[in-house]
Amino acid sequence: MSECIFCKIIDGEIPSAKVYEDEHVYAFLDISQVTEGHTLVIPKKHCQDVFELDEDTAAQLFKAVPKITNGIKAAYKPKGLNILNNNGSFADQSVFHIHLHLIPRFDDNDGFKSQWEVHGDDYTPEKLQEIAQTIAQEV
Amino acid sequence: MSECIFCKIIDGEIPSAKVYEDEHVYAFLDISQVTEGHTLVIPKKHCQDVFELDEDTAAQLFKAVPKITNGIKAAYKPKGLNILNNNGSFADQSVFHIHLHLIPRFDDNDGFKSQWEVHGDDYTPEKLQEIAQTIAQEV
Ligand SMILES: [Zn+2]
Ligand SMILES: [Zn+2]
Repeated sequence: MSECIFCKIIDGEIPSAKVYEDEHVYAFLDISQVTEGHTLVIPKKHCQDVFELDEDTAAQLFKAVPKITNGIKAAYKPKGLNILNNNGSFADQSVFHIHLHLIPRFDDNDGFKSQWEVHGDDYTPEKLQEIAQTIAQEV
Repeated sequence: MSECIFCKIIDGEIPSAKVYEDEHVYAFLDISQVTEGHTLVIPKKHCQDVFELDEDTAAQLFKAVPKITNGIKAAYKPKGLNILNNNGSFADQSVFHIHLHLIPRFDDNDGFKSQWEVHGDDYTPEKLQEIAQTIAQEV
């Protein structure tokens, strides 16, 4: 038996506030409700994180996202919506079954903020090409 | 002719540091390089945001993500990786052609941070069911 809390939610062993379900995907409210309507979208197939995700499961997972976000939009009329997926505990992943956070945004103090520091000035076009090559040869 | 900067990048009118390309998807380095290897993944079909994204384009877009993230992982050995998609200027979207930010994470001061405030204590299980229903009937 799986010890994964999200697999148990999919199986109905642990209750959840379900927003959407299809053959491949389950969506339910995050109990932390960073903002009202904060929803998690997960594949029914257990995959730890994006690195473990196979192509078909990735496609099925995101295919469901526009209709769910449009459902949130119709229900809550947010000013915007952030989608966040954290991979690895260092990047704030806490449940190791991949999940997408859909976070409707309402005001500046609504509970979510992403902080950015830009470093564009540190990179010449040549350096960027070098980095892109380094990654591209591993894809 | 499109005035969209990302459509121009796909067409090669504006140069970019390309990481990956297939029939449906283009991936290139974000010139702001929030962290080194910070990559944008976009559909070749112009869609403004997740609300405008059709199901097929959504599926094709995310299908490419595991291989690109695994390329970043192999090239840079990050401690984690965040994927962020901002929809609406209120949610920090600045180019209105949907894009996924792939942000490899290296240390606590590497340039990216997502701030969360949890509000779970404000919601009873009954209230969560009510919210889920409100969204579900719009999906
Ligand atoms: Zn699981
Ligand atoms: Zn465009």
